[in-house]
Amino acid sequence: MSAATSDPGGAVIRATYEIHGPVLDAARRAHALAVEQSHEFPTELAPEHTLVSLAHVVDLVEVHPTLARAQVEFPADLAGDDLSQLLVLLFGNVSLQPGVRLVDLELPPALQHVGPGPRVGVDGLRTLLDAPSRPLLATALKPVGLSSAELAQRAEAFALGGIDLVKDDQGLASQRWSPFEERVAAVAAAVTRANARTGGRTLYLPTLSGPAETLGRRVRFALDAGVGGFLVLPGVGGLDEVRHVASLVPAGTPLMAHPALLGSFVADPTHGIAPELLFGPLLRLAGADVVVFPSFGGRFSFTREQCEAIAGGLRRPFGDVPGALPAPGGGMGIDRVPELLETYGQDVVLLIGGELHRGGDLRRSAQEFRAAVGG
Amino acid sequence: MSAATSDPGGAVIRATYEIHGPVLDAARRAHALAVEQSHEFPTELAPEHTLVSLAHVVDLVEVHPTLARAQVEFPADLAGDDLSQLLVLLFGNVSLQPGVRLVDLELPPALQHVGPGPRVGVDGLRTLLDAPSRPLLATALKPVGLSSAELAQRAEAFALGGIDLVKDDQGLASQRWSPFEERVAAVAAAVTRANARTGGRTLYLPTLSGPAETLGRRVRFALDAGVGGFLVLPGVGGLDEVRHVASLVPAGTPLMAHPALLGSFVADPTHGIAPELLFGPLLRLAGADVVVFPSFGGRFSFTREQCEAIAGGLRRPFGDVPGALPAPGGGMGIDRVPELLETYGQDVVLLIGGELHRGGDLRRSAQEFRAAVGG
Repeated sequence: MSAATSDPGGAVIRATYEIHGPVLDAARRAHALAVEQSHEFPTELAPEHTLVSLAHVVDLVEVHPTLARAQVEFPADLAGDDLSQLLVLLFGNVSLQPGVRLVDLELPPALQHVGPGPRVGVDGLRTLLDAPSRPLLATALKPVGLSSAELAQRAEAFALGGIDLVKDDQGLASQRWSPFEERVAAVAAAVTRANARTGGRTLYLPTLSGPAETLGRRVRFALDAGVGGFLVLPGVGGLDEVRHVASLVPAGTPLMAHPALLGSFVADPTHGIAPELLFGPLLRLAGADVVVFPSFGGRFSFTREQCEAIAGGLRRPFGDVPGALPAPGGGMGIDRVPELLETYGQDVVLLIGGELHRGGDLRRSAQEFRAAVGG
Repeated sequence: MSAATSDPGGAVIRATYEIHGPVLDAARRAHALAVEQSHEFPTELAPEHTLVSLAHVVDLVEVHPTLARAQVEFPADLAGDDLSQLLVLLFGNVSLQPGVRLVDLELPPALQHVGPGPRVGVDGLRTLLDAPSRPLLATALKPVGLSSAELAQRAEAFALGGIDLVKDDQGLASQRWSPFEERVAAVAAAVTRANARTGGRTLYLPTLSGPAETLGRRVRFALDAGVGGFLVLPGVGGLDEVRHVASLVPAGTPLMAHPALLGSFVADPTHGIAPELLFGPLLRLAGADVVVFPSFGGRFSFTREQCEAIAGGLRRPFGDVPGALPAPGGGMGIDRVPELLETYGQDVVLLIGGELHRGGDLRRSAQEFRAAVGG
């Protein structure tokens, strides 16, 4: 493959992969990965005059006898200014090969805008919520099966008690006992009433998922109804759906990303995409302001170290893409608040769902939650 | 949780999960899964009057000391007539828990139409291609980096040589050296010319991926240009994107699904979604007529048995959802044809990409490929 006609000064994407397996084989596998993810063509048959150079391995480090770390450079043009194509490029076909994990990524400046980035961001959300420095609080409307009126009552109680972000459970789609429009109108009105009573700034975030044709209509309906933002499901509709929703909402409308279906990318430590990259820079790039993930010590299996890494991935520099807020959840309770704050610090959205219902007085539970973070 | 107000005769979804880990713990984990994937709520706190019954475990079989198989019934209404929500329901949150694999699925009649199913199907594609019984042939336009004119030349040679389906490589998005519209117009025209010369019926299938806003426009442009169908990437845009594309094209327009990014769901045998379900009934339901997957003996790691299971998943009864065609690929060559036909039978789309370029005469390679399946 001749690189003669490629742009020698061209922008590059640098992706780092872990290659799990005997390191003796790592160099061959890293090279094959670079071919697979670019030309996907027998190198010896590639046309001399191809207009773009092949991706190539620029660094290979043997970490231990069964782990190497390979850095691969891709010509940035291969991504075609397209978030979906960027993912195909980084991990499309190698997702089908065992023992390969995408663990880090550097994008050239142009591609740092392939998604909008967090459009509200940490400071913006704090301004919206009039909460300049304290930990932010979130809960989920549940369980599925309640009527829209019942969900609205619950939302109102949470807002009266001082929860900042009241989101739909990701399982509340548009089922018969609470269709999307009916629920969104009822809950948004309830939260608006509560805010008027308390002077608070609680935001309601309905779940946006479902048939692609409904997306624009639902966004407009919900904004007209007075929602404060949206819950998006990138594991279901793709990272591009987050970007698309971000493009449909006015500036100042926060997006919270939920990890439904994303688990398969991160569950196997020898495969997939590192959670601190997927739940960090990649979701930030797509447009998430807040990223929900299952915290340690709940119903899921991330360790404390992994959770700290995810929070780090949401905060660390990633080109000029702003940071976003971690929202650890998944079986948390008020008693866990001190430990969560010790782990994640003050720039966090603490998400407690079902456990706020213990005791039966949602407003009081919300007040206790608020008090637990120093109110 | 009272089920008193649920519909006792209501339709149910039956999903089968493998629970990997000590079987002593399997019953508890299966129950937790049913809760997680439905109410996601502490059972003891669930309101008595909830309008839908909780999902529940109806069968648990200990397969061996570290594997149990649990069948879970979900009230069908939880899926909300929405393919995305069906996925959230079946595997959304448990994707984040280790040792759980969705392996089988039964849908009630209403949900068998949550996606359109293959709208062309096996017989329809054979009619379109005037190939009533022989194995069908496919190739991919590549490598990325060629100009649209060069790709069109290649497509013309493949069509002249008798390839049935000429698809874009999944990596051909809309990069600067071959923007989508330019490529699609040039390649479609080249294939039309070749068909006019030979009396053949070669179909060109461009890749549809990329920003959501471009989807409808690209579909219309490509249909006007004379393409024969589309390549879709459900791992990137979600199963709902396949359904959406199927809704945008006229009847008789086949969709071929490519597995980019789907590998993480199937790579770990103790987690994710069984490939014979994901690449079989789930993609059929979404609307795929042809499903590409990496065959054994190529650059990927599925075994022959797994590949046979995938082909079986594309053919087996699944409610009234028609079957679709397997398209084994990923490093195949003409010399492998006898083995592939022995494995997959005649109802197959054999996909050979880069290897058809060996020798440099694409038309002749295509003719040899055609001759190898008995022309």
